[in-house]
Amino acid sequence: MRRSRLTASLVAVLLLGFALSWGQAPELKTIKLDDPNKTRGLPVMQAFALRASAREWSDKDLSLQDLSDLLWAADGINRPDGRRTAPSAMNAQDVDIFVFMKDGAYKYDAAGHSLVPVIAGDYRLTVTPPRGGPGAKPMAKPGEKPEAKPEAKPAPPTPAPVLIVLVTDIGKFRMGETESKLRMGTLDVGIVSENIGVFCAGTGLATRPRASMDAAKIKELLKLADTKYPLLNHPVGYPK
Amino acid sequence: MRRSRLTASLVAVLLLGFALSWGQAPELKTIKLDDPNKTRGLPVMQAFALRASAREWSDKDLSLQDLSDLLWAADGINRPDGRRTAPSAMNAQDVDIFVFMKDGAYKYDAAGHSLVPVIAGDYRLTVTPPRGGPGAKPMAKPGEKPEAKPEAKPAPPTPAPVLIVLVTDIGKFRMGETESKLRMGTLDVGIVSENIGVFCAGTGLATRPRASMDAAKIKELLKLADTKYPLLNHPVGYPK
Repeated sequence: MRRSRLTASLVAVLLLGFALSWGQAPELKTIKLDDPNKTRGLPVMQAFALRASAREWSDKDLSLQDLSDLLWAADGINRPDGRRTAPSAMNAQDVDIFVFMKDGAYKYDAAGHSLVPVIAGDYRLTVTPPRGGPGAKPMAKPGEKPEAKPEAKPAPPTPAPVLIVLVTDIGKFRMGETESKLRMGTLDVGIVSENIGVFCAGTGLATRPRASMDAAKIKELLKLADTKYPLLNHPVGYPK
Repeated sequence: MRRSRLTASLVAVLLLGFALSWGQAPELKTIKLDDPNKTRGLPVMQAFALRASAREWSDKDLSLQDLSDLLWAADGINRPDGRRTAPSAMNAQDVDIFVFMKDGAYKYDAAGHSLVPVIAGDYRLTVTPPRGGPGAKPMAKPGEKPEAKPEAKPAPPTPAPVLIVLVTDIGKFRMGETESKLRMGTLDVGIVSENIGVFCAGTGLATRPRASMDAAKIKELLKLADTKYPLLNHPVGYPK
């Protein structure tokens, strides 16, 4: 009798676990982020003095504390009423932050200060194909004969350990035409982008904002609704 | 003979002065800003913890050092090659910063770290008419009878001492359709806006980004070309 009850409980727990993980990439787990360290970093003016767009990154993974602070600085909750480090038009909180890493892509959950799995697999270079990547050949200069010998393929580029993709959900704006909603969402993405830029400058991380990416591929991978627009991405890593 | 030469020189100097001031508001002078204090402010994470949109400001004028640091943090030159505290798409440096104060409107000249006069006069409330300003009546709640007695006019609002207007000049982008240029310019304005937001949070100033403003009036007053779009404004002051 006691054994059968135990078995029933066990089955129930397993079923619950299965139900909760339904719709999530099964191989990935939610990453509980560290509490933000709210006293860290350089004085703001020193961060502005160092703010610069990096082109290289170490492939070393970010520490959990650095990843946690980065996301909280970008658009975390900094007040008891749920307001954020980044302002948004009409407080619509329309910007979604997706984090692409070696093992998969996650969505930043500001309320839970955690990363929720979206899709397993390394899509960092898929969604932001490098310009001079594998297969790319240097162009012949005007008046110069194209090289007869086959070019040695350039080494595949090393992606930054973290690729942040910023998406506005203009469905969060209740009023206005699509064009005006898109303008508000674009401003809001720029704002979150610069939180990332200033945070990195103030804590010794390397980043840059980039508009070039395969937005269609991102929408497909992340199963984004039509109201969601990927507008910028930020590779983030330690300086090389 | 010597006297007439002196008179001729004097006239030449006056004519030169007149020629140089041509096109500038004659009552205003260029404001040479203080060198930025690059070590000042709270640690960046503390600034993010305090970042919030203010609705009130003291009417006390900003000190020259605060105004200087604010503009440099927003989009000043932070490297010998002329690159800026704010990244911009393809380094187009498309964002113009206009500063409206009691005596007139100025344009921030990043290369000279100075404010160049554009138009004399106080246009702070003209370009950003307050919603609850003079003449505005509170709406009756649903089911509530409208007030029969004439409402007492609310006191005219006190504008912040400094009103920053952010304008993208999409003429600075060499490639792309107007729509894509406008998207890049809008992202760049959002980026400069958040430099202002983080600087204020890190140095005890009060601000908020606002999209609502009389853009047509701003274009007229500042004589902006058709490629220039005012997209956001920031009142800035000491906390009330």
